[in-house]
Amino acid sequence: MDLLEKIGRQAIEAKTFLACACAGSKQKNRALEAVADALETRMQEIVAANAEDIIRAIDTGTAESFLDRLRLDEKRILGMADGVRQVAALPDPVGRVLYGSERPNGLKIEKVSVPLGVIAIIYEARPNVTSDAAALCLKAGNCVVLRGGKEALSSNKCIAKVMRDALENAGFPADCVQLVEDTDRETAAALMKLNQYIDVLIPRGGAGLIQSVVQNATVPVIETGVGNCHVFVDASADLTIAADIVYNAKTSRPSVCNACETALVHRDIAEEFLPQMAEKLALKNVEIRGDAAVCRVLPQAVPAAEEDWYTEFLDYILAVRIVDSLDEAAAHIAKYSSHHSESIVTSDYHNARRFTQLVDSAAVYVNASTRYTDGGEFGLGAEIGISTQKLHARGPMGLNELTSYKFLIFGDGQIR
Amino acid sequence: MDLLEKIGRQAIEAKTFLACACAGSKQKNRALEAVADALETRMQEIVAANAEDIIRAIDTGTAESFLDRLRLDEKRILGMADGVRQVAALPDPVGRVLYGSERPNGLKIEKVSVPLGVIAIIYEARPNVTSDAAALCLKAGNCVVLRGGKEALSSNKCIAKVMRDALENAGFPADCVQLVEDTDRETAAALMKLNQYIDVLIPRGGAGLIQSVVQNATVPVIETGVGNCHVFVDASADLTIAADIVYNAKTSRPSVCNACETALVHRDIAEEFLPQMAEKLALKNVEIRGDAAVCRVLPQAVPAAEEDWYTEFLDYILAVRIVDSLDEAAAHIAKYSSHHSESIVTSDYHNARRFTQLVDSAAVYVNASTRYTDGGEFGLGAEIGISTQKLHARGPMGLNELTSYKFLIFGDGQIR
Repeated sequence: MDLLEKIGRQAIEAKTFLACACAGSKQKNRALEAVADALETRMQEIVAANAEDIIRAIDTGTAESFLDRLRLDEKRILGMADGVRQVAALPDPVGRVLYGSERPNGLKIEKVSVPLGVIAIIYEARPNVTSDAAALCLKAGNCVVLRGGKEALSSNKCIAKVMRDALENAGFPADCVQLVEDTDRETAAALMKLNQYIDVLIPRGGAGLIQSVVQNATVPVIETGVGNCHVFVDASADLTIAADIVYNAKTSRPSVCNACETALVHRDIAEEFLPQMAEKLALKNVEIRGDAAVCRVLPQAVPAAEEDWYTEFLDYILAVRIVDSLDEAAAHIAKYSSHHSESIVTSDYHNARRFTQLVDSAAVYVNASTRYTDGGEFGLGAEIGISTQKLHARGPMGLNELTSYKFLIFGDGQIR
Repeated sequence: MDLLEKIGRQAIEAKTFLACACAGSKQKNRALEAVADALETRMQEIVAANAEDIIRAIDTGTAESFLDRLRLDEKRILGMADGVRQVAALPDPVGRVLYGSERPNGLKIEKVSVPLGVIAIIYEARPNVTSDAAALCLKAGNCVVLRGGKEALSSNKCIAKVMRDALENAGFPADCVQLVEDTDRETAAALMKLNQYIDVLIPRGGAGLIQSVVQNATVPVIETGVGNCHVFVDASADLTIAADIVYNAKTSRPSVCNACETALVHRDIAEEFLPQMAEKLALKNVEIRGDAAVCRVLPQAVPAAEEDWYTEFLDYILAVRIVDSLDEAAAHIAKYSSHHSESIVTSDYHNARRFTQLVDSAAVYVNASTRYTDGGEFGLGAEIGISTQKLHARGPMGLNELTSYKFLIFGDGQIR
């Protein structure tokens, strides 16, 4: 794969530039400001390139929801530029001394945050990811290799060119940002095995993409974004709060990963709570898929199939199950969840404590909607994704999670 | 693979126990003390089991160096018990609040360290890894699935049984520690893809094992241990210090990963330094494999082949190359190193600074031997391995690196 070999080599060269003092916080921020300015001044080019993608998509009879993800107008491009400026304004995650000590033999040891190196991002239709992801990677001193969906190729090429030109004008190597213009599967598969050049691979997209990457990559991967989230309504819950939380977690934005997909309801309050919950959900015509016990209480419920418990519906559909205890709820979550976000609604102190201990997910809530799992909502700044794995980063991944560290050891000739 | 499915399910059950308050620091330490005591009191059983492995190895004509790694005598078993007690005495890495804030909407957010969950370790001949690795994993609240080499199967089975019995007597599920008794390749390959049950896989062994795991695993992996380490002797180096460091880094223990494999020597001091270095190395009959320029200065040097620069010799062999500049040395390291440990010997402030910036390895030294890369030497406590990847952990991996984290969010009915 000659193309990837070339991209890899170029990334390594750009990485060496970024490792030096000539790419300190000040210089990186100036380069990001230049990128933001260029996105604005060359907006018409980007709109024109995007129009090519849109026309092609319409010709192939693409659904309107997909077109919406693909479309870039002036407002969205201004949003992209603004996003880049916000990233520039965040604190630099590189160069933090995470640990330091002077050893008895006089060696001075420091553990210092450093860029991960070369980050590859494989994503789908949204072309704004091109600038969002590149800005975060750059701010953390990383080179980025982007591989977007073929539907957005014209847009991505144009955005990448605008960014690369701006970087060069700011004295940075253009290859800090590279786009893989081959959008066939073979190139994606080869990219996933480019261990020699790529330090980390972050897939951004649906469950199919993520699984394909996890199964095929030999480069270290951070799994993101698949959210099969649960709300457990405990016997002691305030039922009005519980109905509000389930309604909000399901319907405020069903297409996102922190939306709730399954409600687990304690048997003791099921008869009282389920009709109350169903009444709220009916406001948005949410389809309820229930187990046998739920269907007995709610005649409008559809019987749930086993695969429903595993499904991220991303739609106005909610699976509902009645459980006998908190531990049964936790066991259900352990079996079916994607370990993204889960919430307990309870008034019992001990149950709140046990749920937060037992449930092994990135974000575990007590009496709040799962919809808060987000870098901004957590006060962590812009995020590149929400990790559902336990290695390296978990939950919202911001700038700090785009760094590694190294140990620096200063001596005067010490030998062992 | 029924066996692994069973092991996986058992691990998940034991994990649930470890997640609860019933497995706090006090209980974990008590369980580890019980394990240490049992290793001592049942020492004769372990010695007898080990004798079976040794006899089998002798029958198949195994080399003495291998037998030495395999052998367990009373002293080594006491060392294993002592190692477990040292781990018990370390601070608990679980439950540290790594970040916390109260959001404007009243949500209280905490980022708390938690166990990784289920850790699989694939290792080779040394049976002491069985107790060393298990103790570290347990202390960090993890279940461990061990898969040792077939040569040590009798020893490993016995050690695992002793540990499991001790855990049960201490009120812990025996399945906190499980040994995969099938030592065929198919079982190892299946273990590497057991994503449903295993959170992290750590291979411990030679380059072949590590590469096989990196190429085949779909479970997240932490690469450890391969050390192609470099010492760069700058033009401004104190040549006596430089010769001492090269000699120490190469010969104090050539079989370990932090030993030096290649010396890079600045052209300006090569004629003066090389004979001085060669004279010291001759004390241990070190073979020098040099580039053409080195061979011109040192008639005893053997010409180096291209693959020598990539090789972790683990022996009394040193590759030596003359370079024109620090940047050339850094470029050589970037190309050939395993990114474990590299050292510059210099008296120049700017060169020290540039080397530590440019060289992208887990440990970067100024004027010290690479042999210090070790959890104990860095003041970090016992280590499970030395990571040469950038994701999650880099360099010596101790207890903190055997944890992940989760976000806990406490609310009063907040919806978004």
